[in-house]
Amino acid sequence: MFSVDPVNHTLDEQIRHIIDQKTKPLGALGQLEALAAQIARVQATGTDSLSRLTITKPAMLVFAADHGIAEYGVSIAPSAVTTQMVYNFVAGGAAINVFSRQTGFNLEVIDCGILEPLADPTGVTQQRLGTGTAPIHKAPAMSLEQVEQGFSYANELIQRHQQSGCNLIALGEMGIGNTSSATAIMSALLNVEVSQCVGRGTGIDDDALQLKTTLLNQAIELHRDQLTSPKQILAHLGGFEIVQMTGAILAAAQRKMLVVIDGFIATAAALVAVELHPEARDYLIFAHQSNESGHKLMLKHLEATPLLHLDLRLGEGTGGALALPLIQAATNFYNDMASFGDAGVSNVT
Amino acid sequence: MFSVDPVNHTLDEQIRHIIDQKTKPLGALGQLEALAAQIARVQATGTDSLSRLTITKPAMLVFAADHGIAEYGVSIAPSAVTTQMVYNFVAGGAAINVFSRQTGFNLEVIDCGILEPLADPTGVTQQRLGTGTAPIHKAPAMSLEQVEQGFSYANELIQRHQQSGCNLIALGEMGIGNTSSATAIMSALLNVEVSQCVGRGTGIDDDALQLKTTLLNQAIELHRDQLTSPKQILAHLGGFEIVQMTGAILAAAQRKMLVVIDGFIATAAALVAVELHPEARDYLIFAHQSNESGHKLMLKHLEATPLLHLDLRLGEGTGGALALPLIQAATNFYNDMASFGDAGVSNVT
Repeated sequence: MFSVDPVNHTLDEQIRHIIDQKTKPLGALGQLEALAAQIARVQATGTDSLSRLTITKPAMLVFAADHGIAEYGVSIAPSAVTTQMVYNFVAGGAAINVFSRQTGFNLEVIDCGILEPLADPTGVTQQRLGTGTAPIHKAPAMSLEQVEQGFSYANELIQRHQQSGCNLIALGEMGIGNTSSATAIMSALLNVEVSQCVGRGTGIDDDALQLKTTLLNQAIELHRDQLTSPKQILAHLGGFEIVQMTGAILAAAQRKMLVVIDGFIATAAALVAVELHPEARDYLIFAHQSNESGHKLMLKHLEATPLLHLDLRLGEGTGGALALPLIQAATNFYNDMASFGDAGVSNVT
Repeated sequence: MFSVDPVNHTLDEQIRHIIDQKTKPLGALGQLEALAAQIARVQATGTDSLSRLTITKPAMLVFAADHGIAEYGVSIAPSAVTTQMVYNFVAGGAAINVFSRQTGFNLEVIDCGILEPLADPTGVTQQRLGTGTAPIHKAPAMSLEQVEQGFSYANELIQRHQQSGCNLIALGEMGIGNTSSATAIMSALLNVEVSQCVGRGTGIDDDALQLKTTLLNQAIELHRDQLTSPKQILAHLGGFEIVQMTGAILAAAQRKMLVVIDGFIATAAALVAVELHPEARDYLIFAHQSNESGHKLMLKHLEATPLLHLDLRLGEGTGGALALPLIQAATNFYNDMASFGDAGVSNVT
């Protein structure tokens, strides 16, 4: 249902020239230079459009859902915490609220399918695909129809944001058990052993890690013959929030919006999205590299160099929120720094 | 002339408790948690004062000076560029202007001793110690009296900022040739071979790197018997901006202000400051780790874990400016996140 155009590479040389004429040694702004060039390739439609890059109405979209596997001891917290945290988001007290307010993100919380509908859904967008997924080591997480419905919901969500003037989204998530789903997706999609993908999530101990590994191996073994496409992988191993994050990435790339990818869960959604539409990769900005070896492996596969390394392991989109000032710094130096000629500074490089 | 108190460790347990009761898994905000605790230790005077951390009127202080050794082929640019860049700072067109405007720093540019007084000094604070230092491989950079005068200037500068309500300063610098001075200081202070300290600065080639190493070895050999104290090291190998940055660190720590340390030059000043007053270390926030092996070695000596790794090699304080949103994020989560009890979220950790 999505169609993603490649970014504009015809202006690469002009973009490089603009950056190199700024009053600084060649390449001295490091990763910010690569980021500015990436944003320019996304936003440039002609040479006139090269003069200014813009980030407008950035939206932090936090996708919440529950996971059947969470009842089997793979997380430090029970599924009830997903709903509790959704209320915390609405009340404005979570880390993602604090960081979004600070950096200027509009925060939207989406119920993609937590265990029970909220008693008071005020302030939460309803895009429910069910009442939590099935436990993936016993049954498919969801049907292909639910995957398609999730993509459709995500498409409408992104369309609404685009129409309100947003040109950058960041993906956040909340869902007890969702690192299990993301790990299984990664293992299936990259054809890498579960043991190389699995991690401690928000902080499980050795026994729980062993159990998580065993259950995820069971899940992949159980569904092996059906894991024949990215959508089938989502249906059998996914989560309702991961499906909608994947859809949101593709819907945003289709509309030439930038997408900020945070931690392990969002990166797993990015893997699926890029597998479906490789052109989507160039619209993605990677915010944070965690210390989990599985995350590093996914980022390597995506040839991604995240902006931050702060040892975060919270999710919610927190890394993405913290990265926005760096993304704005990239557009600001590109837009506003003087060139050697303008400033009367000798260009010796 | 400075007197630095240790930070307040009597409240460490209460600070830890406040952070651990926030609605997040234990330790899940990684480096930001350590940073919030550090700021709390600096700002806490009693249990009442633990409730809110504040960053007020942050000041980016850019210290400019010239270096005699720059005439001997150790830099990609001639000394004239120092003055040109000072005018660029005044005009608002340099990277540090762009980033300071974005993140909310008040920018002040200080002439600590560029080659010639500015024809138009409007907008530049005059704290000149001379007309560039002597070439350190041939003579002492400056006298001990100039070092003391630099400390005195820096003390007045910081006092003025404190009196205007500032409680955080960041150190920036501009000075063609100043990585040479910083390298020599590092080598002398840590008693490490020049070859392990030296780097390419803003981008010199292999031949220039070889020459830089040779001249710095000459400098250290020439002054070896006089390098008996941190102040003597500053006098023989320092720069006018490095002396004033060292003084600014100590003047700020004395007033319980936070100090953001950026790249190679500022870190060399931090080394000297901490050698003079070890208590100053706890007031320092390290903004950016460069890829230079010498910088890594200094940071290791200072047991510092910088917030950013963006492959910057520009100086000016750019890393410090970019780190301010992360410092504010640390204070904001500490101040504004809900606790488990407030939010009705199960604390399972």
